[in-house]
Amino acid sequence: MVDIFHRVGIKAPISKVYEALSTIEGIAGWWTKETTGVSAPGGHIEVLFSSPSGERLGGMSMEVMALALDEAVQWRFRSGPEEWVGTDALFRLSQDGDYTIVRFGHRNWREAVEFTEHCSTKWATFMLSLKDLVEKGQGKPAPDDIWIGNWH
Amino acid sequence: MVDIFHRVGIKAPISKVYEALSTIEGIAGWWTKETTGVSAPGGHIEVLFSSPSGERLGGMSMEVMALALDEAVQWRFRSGPEEWVGTDALFRLSQDGDYTIVRFGHRNWREAVEFTEHCSTKWATFMLSLKDLVEKGQGKPAPDDIWIGNWH
Repeated sequence: MVDIFHRVGIKAPISKVYEALSTIEGIAGWWTKETTGVSAPGGHIEVLFSSPSGERLGGMSMEVMALALDEAVQWRFRSGPEEWVGTDALFRLSQDGDYTIVRFGHRNWREAVEFTEHCSTKWATFMLSLKDLVEKGQGKPAPDDIWIGNWH
Repeated sequence: MVDIFHRVGIKAPISKVYEALSTIEGIAGWWTKETTGVSAPGGHIEVLFSSPSGERLGGMSMEVMALALDEAVQWRFRSGPEEWVGTDALFRLSQDGDYTIVRFGHRNWREAVEFTEHCSTKWATFMLSLKDLVEKGQGKPAPDDIWIGNWH
């Protein structure tokens, strides 16, 4: 099994970061504007991705496995890219001085393929989008996300 | 062993990307301005990192293990953060239409610790800095690099 991992420090109260990760409105502010569903344990969230010109690029749905107030959010991908199905996204929060630390893992990829590498870089841009959303009030969710190459 | 991996697509000829990875001047344009040494197989390159205010943050030196024209660059870290010593950075280049694809790996970490997660996110910002340097002529090398949290 292979994991993607990232770490960012966000200069904001932990409750603000948890809110951005645990609510539909929050997720829509940093990952993709096209976020719908129910963010509660056992609930399903659907995320869709489009280009700035409106072309549908893809999407996935995930089951909310755990919500621990101000501590952690865990999702399991149930549909979407074949490589994603069955993998987990885990966000763990902690406080370090003025910063809320987000330790992120996209865990249990069957193997590291080129698409994994792409997703690793893309997740970094979304973690920085989360940081901008919480610190400045404005993230870069799709379709305004940073394009990192020919795979968007 | 644990690997960090990323992938970016750069809209430029492969030779331009290779130049940015295989020359001291190139590396200084996207990773850190404080890059010195000899970029040739068996040569050593030293990179130092400072804050915008001039505070020294750290550094490392690496041995150039392989330079394959327009194909690959491989370094092995010989000194620096304890976790880095003995690990390899590998950049593999290929062409895909108008894009040069960079597949990056920082390989053979003994384990995935919080510092690994930080370095993964930080490498993503430097890969985007490399993309900006080659596409637009201006990267974001240290000390102008993107700060991703309380660990810079």
